[in-house]
Amino acid sequence: MRTLAVEVPSRSGEAVDVSGWVHRIRSLGGITFVLIRDRSGVVQVVYEGDVDFTLESVVTVRGSVEANEKAPGGFEVRAAETTLLAVAASDLPIPVNQPLDGVGIDALLDHRIVSLRNIKVRHIFELQATVVQAFAEFLRSQGFTEIKSSKLIGTGTEGGTGLFTVDYFGDQVFLAQSPQFYKQAMVASGMERVFEVGAAYRAEKHDTPRHLNEYVSLDVEMGFIESESDLMDLEVEILQHLFAAVNGKHGDILAEFEARVPTGDQVAATPRISHDRAKEIIKERTGARAFEINPEGERVLCEWADEEHGVEAVFVYGFPRKKRPFYTYPEGLKTRSFDLLFRGLEITTGGQRINEYPMLLEALPKFGLTEAGLGDYPTIFKYGCPPHGGFAIGLERITQKILGLQNVKEASLFPRDRKRVRP
Amino acid sequence: MRTLAVEVPSRSGEAVDVSGWVHRIRSLGGITFVLIRDRSGVVQVVYEGDVDFTLESVVTVRGSVEANEKAPGGFEVRAAETTLLAVAASDLPIPVNQPLDGVGIDALLDHRIVSLRNIKVRHIFELQATVVQAFAEFLRSQGFTEIKSSKLIGTGTEGGTGLFTVDYFGDQVFLAQSPQFYKQAMVASGMERVFEVGAAYRAEKHDTPRHLNEYVSLDVEMGFIESESDLMDLEVEILQHLFAAVNGKHGDILAEFEARVPTGDQVAATPRISHDRAKEIIKERTGARAFEINPEGERVLCEWADEEHGVEAVFVYGFPRKKRPFYTYPEGLKTRSFDLLFRGLEITTGGQRINEYPMLLEALPKFGLTEAGLGDYPTIFKYGCPPHGGFAIGLERITQKILGLQNVKEASLFPRDRKRVRP
Repeated sequence: MRTLAVEVPSRSGEAVDVSGWVHRIRSLGGITFVLIRDRSGVVQVVYEGDVDFTLESVVTVRGSVEANEKAPGGFEVRAAETTLLAVAASDLPIPVNQPLDGVGIDALLDHRIVSLRNIKVRHIFELQATVVQAFAEFLRSQGFTEIKSSKLIGTGTEGGTGLFTVDYFGDQVFLAQSPQFYKQAMVASGMERVFEVGAAYRAEKHDTPRHLNEYVSLDVEMGFIESESDLMDLEVEILQHLFAAVNGKHGDILAEFEARVPTGDQVAATPRISHDRAKEIIKERTGARAFEINPEGERVLCEWADEEHGVEAVFVYGFPRKKRPFYTYPEGLKTRSFDLLFRGLEITTGGQRINEYPMLLEALPKFGLTEAGLGDYPTIFKYGCPPHGGFAIGLERITQKILGLQNVKEASLFPRDRKRVRP
Repeated sequence: MRTLAVEVPSRSGEAVDVSGWVHRIRSLGGITFVLIRDRSGVVQVVYEGDVDFTLESVVTVRGSVEANEKAPGGFEVRAAETTLLAVAASDLPIPVNQPLDGVGIDALLDHRIVSLRNIKVRHIFELQATVVQAFAEFLRSQGFTEIKSSKLIGTGTEGGTGLFTVDYFGDQVFLAQSPQFYKQAMVASGMERVFEVGAAYRAEKHDTPRHLNEYVSLDVEMGFIESESDLMDLEVEILQHLFAAVNGKHGDILAEFEARVPTGDQVAATPRISHDRAKEIIKERTGARAFEINPEGERVLCEWADEEHGVEAVFVYGFPRKKRPFYTYPEGLKTRSFDLLFRGLEITTGGQRINEYPMLLEALPKFGLTEAGLGDYPTIFKYGCPPHGGFAIGLERITQKILGLQNVKEASLFPRDRKRVRP
């Protein structure tokens, strides 16, 4: 019966089996101190004399638990018998048991199989799992149903640019940029409230610290809304729940990254400003006139929100029609759409969608589209679709911003970019 | 403030707003009875005189709740004011408010946007969402962490056949057949216990009621196992939790499909037989010698399990080495692998994996593979990987078998097959 590292202090005086990776080896006056790493933490094992295994080898150690103030957790295991489960080569390309602060992003990703062994790196993804869980939990509590839609699509609803092509039995199909079509179809089906956690693909060539060509999209779509305000209200509640879950479960990881999440009150105080007002604020604070909100503008707006409203987040609504997809609900030359900026980065795009069939048909030519060119999409609206809208949160982006990571690729287990399709 | 159909009986005598789709219209002696469908159910609305909206139009009705024994749920809404939110065309290609038993699978899928409006069809996916939730919940309770791995891979770990190719900025990459490589990497990273809910792709041309070219794989991988028995034990526990959740939450849907899920005791009684014994049973019951376990054999084995052990499920272990992927842990000419058959269909493939680097290197030439040809995969084992294994449950297949659906495509919202990439 295996004892996890975290359970060792509760087994004082008992014989235990601990299993894990050889994390550190230190010899001191004829005694060897070995740290064993498992999924729960590390435990110190003490050997008389030397040990003959390498770092990262996998072992099971039988021994007795003794108190030792100097050991991690205040207890250690005096080794009686060691079983070597797997031998590790001694030429680790990057260190596992040392801080990786000096290691560049390319080395981290080139040696991803090894860098993921670093405890601090692994913690990014333990926290990320809680983000996914909290997102889903909250939405289920509000009557939302989880869906799984196809990522292979025959036509591009977003206009067709930026799509990866797939050879599908000799035909050319595309990897979906978002589940937009499908989540709208499910709202219209009568399911009304749906969410999806799934991959999204963007065949865009830019290589920046904020872009991935494959990412996980936390998608939401809700029927019977009055306007995009209902969606911003929903996102506030999601984020309150999500940040509270992260804070409650991973206070230690947040501390390790010297990071904090906004409180529920801070999230509730997130200002909502129009796109026009956002450009004014950027001009007021930078002196330069903004034609659109670029990454520098996103940083400026979050600074403003922090100073004026005590939260590093801001909703921007009322984007011009030209800057949003054809399905966005129009309001004059503007739209009922919004972005959420958090700590200088757009983490959400959303809005109310056109739900009336005649309005959709009227919108298409403005975007150079035809009904026939959209495949089955117009059918959603032809047969009765309620007012609705939704949004998507980029999982890697929100993880990056929660932990203060420099590059969004650090928040993807196996990131894909212009040059990288491995490991 | 909207009142859901399911809440109407609790609002007797009050004024309410109900919103939804016009599900049925029936005129009777100057009175019109309209059923309004929302995500929670249907509610009867009564109009004096005629109504001028079409089936599937979306409305909000203000009215008072009155008892009526003949109405669904025992209450109805007397309409005072109706707002038409969206008009539906009157040429529905297939009916929404009638049983679809006579409608073939092709018509169901050709008109998927409409067939998903059918309440019974929608219920398949409400139950499926609970399968996903219960799978994740149980694994989290056992210390498993959810991961999201890339679906774009540079090399095929399963051997390279049956892969869809993607044009990735001019390079050819593939859609992953499974997260095999990545879940093993995460076990070896120290995360130890991981699961993933994600898309998997098989570029296989067969068009059968049991195959999809894109499906959702419920993947599990666990470190520090003794043998594949630990994995079968884990799957038993997962299924017990999952069936209990489905039964507890969707008793009504099970009844609608005249379906039942096995009890916890039945799942625990699932027999475990060797591949050799499985072939004997097939021969005993069919008279024909079986060289492998084909679909007919799977049905025969589940019948046998039902008769002999009171459960329509059976684990088959000890598959020959030739029939399993190179990474399967060998045991002589056999392997520490297993399938789970349920109601005549293989719903799981799994097994212990090779975890020792020298054993992996020895296995490769037997399968015509080289270390270099496997990209980063061998790195997982070079630096210390514990004994481990895992399995995957096909989400659409288990949904199909829970509900007794004829075709697995019925259990996919937007299925992809040899001929179908729409809607």
